[in-house]
Amino acid sequence: MTRQVHPESDIEVPPPFKDDSNISAEETSSSSSGKKIQKKKCNEGCSFADKVRKFPESVWTSTVKVGREDPRRVVHAFKFGVALTFVSLFYMIDDLYNALQKDAMFAVFTVVVVMEFTVGATLCKGLNRALGTVLAACLAVLIDALASSSTKILTAIIVGVSVFLVGSGATYARFIPHIKKNLDYGVVVFILTFNLVTVSSYRDDNVLRLAQSRMLNIAVGCMICLIMCLLVFPNWSGKYLQDSITSKLESLGNCIEVCVKEYFCESDLKGSEDGSIHDRISKDYKGVLDSKAAEDTLILHARWEPRYTSFHRIPWKQFGKVGDALRHFCYTVVALHGCLKSEIQAPWSIRNKCKNPCIKLAEEANKILKELSNSIKDKRQVCPHILNNGLNKALEDLNNALKSQPQLHFSHTLSARMRGQGPPLPPDSDDGQMPMPQLSKSMSKTMSVIVGLEFSEALPLAAFTSLLLDMVAKLEYVIDEVELLGRMAHFREYRSEDEFSVRTEERPKPCSELPAYGA
Amino acid sequence: MTRQVHPESDIEVPPPFKDDSNISAEETSSSSSGKKIQKKKCNEGCSFADKVRKFPESVWTSTVKVGREDPRRVVHAFKFGVALTFVSLFYMIDDLYNALQKDAMFAVFTVVVVMEFTVGATLCKGLNRALGTVLAACLAVLIDALASSSTKILTAIIVGVSVFLVGSGATYARFIPHIKKNLDYGVVVFILTFNLVTVSSYRDDNVLRLAQSRMLNIAVGCMICLIMCLLVFPNWSGKYLQDSITSKLESLGNCIEVCVKEYFCESDLKGSEDGSIHDRISKDYKGVLDSKAAEDTLILHARWEPRYTSFHRIPWKQFGKVGDALRHFCYTVVALHGCLKSEIQAPWSIRNKCKNPCIKLAEEANKILKELSNSIKDKRQVCPHILNNGLNKALEDLNNALKSQPQLHFSHTLSARMRGQGPPLPPDSDDGQMPMPQLSKSMSKTMSVIVGLEFSEALPLAAFTSLLLDMVAKLEYVIDEVELLGRMAHFREYRSEDEFSVRTEERPKPCSELPAYGA
Repeated sequence: MTRQVHPESDIEVPPPFKDDSNISAEETSSSSSGKKIQKKKCNEGCSFADKVRKFPESVWTSTVKVGREDPRRVVHAFKFGVALTFVSLFYMIDDLYNALQKDAMFAVFTVVVVMEFTVGATLCKGLNRALGTVLAACLAVLIDALASSSTKILTAIIVGVSVFLVGSGATYARFIPHIKKNLDYGVVVFILTFNLVTVSSYRDDNVLRLAQSRMLNIAVGCMICLIMCLLVFPNWSGKYLQDSITSKLESLGNCIEVCVKEYFCESDLKGSEDGSIHDRISKDYKGVLDSKAAEDTLILHARWEPRYTSFHRIPWKQFGKVGDALRHFCYTVVALHGCLKSEIQAPWSIRNKCKNPCIKLAEEANKILKELSNSIKDKRQVCPHILNNGLNKALEDLNNALKSQPQLHFSHTLSARMRGQGPPLPPDSDDGQMPMPQLSKSMSKTMSVIVGLEFSEALPLAAFTSLLLDMVAKLEYVIDEVELLGRMAHFREYRSEDEFSVRTEERPKPCSELPAYGA
Repeated sequence: MTRQVHPESDIEVPPPFKDDSNISAEETSSSSSGKKIQKKKCNEGCSFADKVRKFPESVWTSTVKVGREDPRRVVHAFKFGVALTFVSLFYMIDDLYNALQKDAMFAVFTVVVVMEFTVGATLCKGLNRALGTVLAACLAVLIDALASSSTKILTAIIVGVSVFLVGSGATYARFIPHIKKNLDYGVVVFILTFNLVTVSSYRDDNVLRLAQSRMLNIAVGCMICLIMCLLVFPNWSGKYLQDSITSKLESLGNCIEVCVKEYFCESDLKGSEDGSIHDRISKDYKGVLDSKAAEDTLILHARWEPRYTSFHRIPWKQFGKVGDALRHFCYTVVALHGCLKSEIQAPWSIRNKCKNPCIKLAEEANKILKELSNSIKDKRQVCPHILNNGLNKALEDLNNALKSQPQLHFSHTLSARMRGQGPPLPPDSDDGQMPMPQLSKSMSKTMSVIVGLEFSEALPLAAFTSLLLDMVAKLEYVIDEVELLGRMAHFREYRSEDEFSVRTEERPKPCSELPAYGA
């Protein structure tokens, strides 16, 4: 199974788990660079007829794109079709049909509803469905035994009251966080089965047969789903989770390095590709920040999966903690990016004094994040000397740079130098386009408030440097969580030959050659 | 309908939309303060028997808590029970049973599956189900017409192939982002109905009757759901969305003020309640940061709801943009909080110089956020002078404070003063407990790297001040989005008497009296 990377992104969010937030982020990002102009044009000039004419093309484009992004989706669709055809045979072949007591339709239903993209999700849904069915069938048979000895009217009352009580109670239970998280689908199936059996009992005396047949059919359906999911090109939630964490580590590393280099890059060329670099940076960190819900789902499903890599229990929850630490780390990256886009900037003369140590620090941080990612990929412990060499040196250099510049003091001159390069820190709007007139108005207001004042020239650089230090502190926490993960998962010890993989990536990049995006 | 606020939180996430992330956040937060100690004790000391003994109590506690948090959940469970009992009557009363062509079970299924907490969610699911059923029934009837003239074997082949193709194709379509976002449930129902009708056609010649009966039953089920949802104590997604945005505005305002006051609060008393204040701050901003997925769901559902407040189309998407702007704003708040918890701090002597203007700035920001929240609540435009008075004055004061302190320069002395008050910026762990030994090790490492160096004393203060300015710039963007919302939603004009509501909240709070949490 090869790693699939979104062609336009470094962040590898498992495709079928992209919740709404991911989708909208994707829509935003895909339209943000090249397509932005095209889309804008279309909004302005295209008539409704044009849109209709282009509809088949756009459908085809997105259909192909979905498959290209992750070919496993095509495989899954194929698997689903096979499972469905197979379970339909139970309905069409007489012997099987009779064996399932002529209720084979429930087996078909089960396949449609239970079969999910990954093994964990299918197991979770299948077990929920099984549990809900069995409990509901038992309860329904009990109530039928109570009602069967009564008159017709009394039976109707007992059935009605029990339907009301079980329906209300179960619906209320769905609000309890623990049940909502783990058993929501099971409760829905419980209500469904209970109603089916109880209400049917009013017209069909043989409730036991009904309950039994439903359980048998659901078992057959679940079995077919599990066979297809587990044995034919299985997709593991755990694998997706691990890939998602490692790609986040790498893309954050890139993000920091790009941010810091961009901050100190004075070249005139920069302006032309400025927008796209900012887009890339914000796409990278947005992918990390918005990943909480998808990650929680993956953890939930991964915990259902049989351990497939080693004899040790894999601590999926700890992956979630690494994700949390990364998101917290990411807030500093966002703040760094904020400095980059801010309208108030320190003059180049002051900035250049800190350029080299800051870039060095960012490169070291990137290297450390890459090493963390590699250690998870290789299932080995983190290099024990991960912090001792480069980072310390970079911090000392930065300290010396700051000390050697006595002119770096606060209330210096009154020129709050501005860089006129567009709007400050706006979150991307929903369709990837900026509300420009709105924003320029906002700018003029911001300017009148802030730029009119006379803050020190060095203040922005001080903030930037301080955020870099803050980043190092948070990086420590990420390292700790990854180290803990390595110990909990009993990853193998770090060996000296592993060092090579870290060192080969250590090539200083000139300012113009920014770290590559994409795999 | 009154606003329901989580008793332990200022952030009002509509309860039934809490996705996994919210649940885990809730679990974390509920266990983070008082219960943390209790939980820890239990983990250490309690035997399995103790846990079993306490199980009924904990079930009862969480059951009661769910209802207390939002009494509308109890009402919803009641409504659900009534709808279910009502639709069961279609099965039990002979005339109705015959009217539904003895397939009344599908009406029951529809009620169980379609009825959701809010009107928008129910409408969305109901229309998805209706659309999926109608399309699938039409397609199935077409294929049946094709197959009916063939031999038994050929029919089986046609049925099998069509089941495979439709199943695979529809499953693949579910990966397309637009379909996944809006029509996922519809596609599942499409597959289900198509299979039911097509496969049944193999044993039942009257496919048209089957398709018709299924559509009729689903229509009855959807109708009952809609009546219960729309007419009996309706819950509107739009209302939840609006409440969620306004409460986020308010809690972020509080958060900033607490952060800044805490940063400049030298009192010895602080240490004792330090942890709980940090918990509150991080709970507040985490609620905002993790709200993306829940907010997107609310917007999706709100757009299905009939406009219920005015004749104008309510721009739900714009609420989403306000939410995005707030999240972006929130990153700065996280960074501010980072400064507060950082191990490297400027000495009090330097900090005190900027104390008053910074606190003033935070109070003004809080006031502005409150005014934005009020404007949305009152459905009126934002005060046009929202920026002109207090904020400008506060910025000028801060500028003067910085200018009047020539000793605020960078490479000053070598003492990087530490505050020994616990771990830096750790994300809360999953169970609300910190991995302490791990962390203290991390600390010692961080210290050896950073504190060993000799950064300027004033650097942290410079960063803090700069972040405050960054915050003001981002605040502008939030204001712009809320103003745009007011114009798009045709809110009424701002009147001079509205000013009163803003001014009454303008009472300066002393350092010890922090802004109140909770409603």
